[in-house]
Amino acid sequence: MSAGLRQLIADTQETFRTDPEKARATFKSSSNLTQGFRSEVSIRDHRLTVDEPAALGGTDSGPNPVELVLAALGTCQEITYRAYATAMGIPLESVSVELEGDIDLRGFFAVDESVRSGYKNIRANVRIKSDASDTDLQKLREIVNAHCPVLDIISNKVPVQMEMSVTRPLASREM
Amino acid sequence: MSAGLRQLIADTQETFRTDPEKARATFKSSSNLTQGFRSEVSIRDHRLTVDEPAALGGTDSGPNPVELVLAALGTCQEITYRAYATAMGIPLESVSVELEGDIDLRGFFAVDESVRSGYKNIRANVRIKSDASDTDLQKLREIVNAHCPVLDIISNKVPVQMEMSVTRPLASREM
Repeated sequence: MSAGLRQLIADTQETFRTDPEKARATFKSSSNLTQGFRSEVSIRDHRLTVDEPAALGGTDSGPNPVELVLAALGTCQEITYRAYATAMGIPLESVSVELEGDIDLRGFFAVDESVRSGYKNIRANVRIKSDASDTDLQKLREIVNAHCPVLDIISNKVPVQMEMSVTRPLASREM
Repeated sequence: MSAGLRQLIADTQETFRTDPEKARATFKSSSNLTQGFRSEVSIRDHRLTVDEPAALGGTDSGPNPVELVLAALGTCQEITYRAYATAMGIPLESVSVELEGDIDLRGFFAVDESVRSGYKNIRANVRIKSDASDTDLQKLREIVNAHCPVLDIISNKVPVQMEMSVTRPLASREM
């Protein structure tokens, strides 16, 4: 698949250079809290269940949202390593990522308003199996970290517009 | 489950006030790129598959990493609405979230180095069903947006430390 992928990357770059409008992409997700803290997510044809562990009030039927953030970062690093190794002709036998993130839960629980609710910091260990030179792997690492979308999202600010729409239950409308 | 959850939140807040060390939590994820852009993720006892759609070089066996970020934000909003509605005694029949995020793929594909690789912006529509007053729902919305962990992670900067460790395939060690 490597030669096909290398061609796909080159073709895509050429398309986006010629016609930047084609590079505009919109991704979507919708979810619905069904019971307690359990939510069912739909992303195109894919489904996943998100929940909290019992210690945080859930029924542990899936990973929780902050764990999903780590999963997004790890898999994005792996895909970006694979894509750039292929594009640059650098051998890459395997790549896997382990992540840890620290949260001070006083933030979420509003115990101390000076404590942020999200991760204070995230540590990642990217494990590479490759017989490429150290120089090539350092080049690969730099280009990956400069172009990994989820690393950009987490380590920099993204503007989020939050709309809220309210519907009234039938019972209250009848009163 | 509402009364039990309300008590759990109150108890947790009291514990964290008395002993802030107990509020320190570390979340983890590990993943492994198995084939092409497909990665298998392990989070505690939970498994999920991440992949890219065919147009981006994958086999579409799961959502992609930037879609997972949206799923994390949507479910975190929902859980935070449920938790604070319960804690504040505000009725909340249902909550669901729809999200869209825009990416200019010239960033990821290194076609234009001035273009960021992550989301340029994210739009969320939080749909609430409730017979609470508009004033209470506005209060709820404000406290949720001030304490939602994934909203903090995405809309603010998180420091990420990236380590890379390299192992050499057996074949190259034998040379």
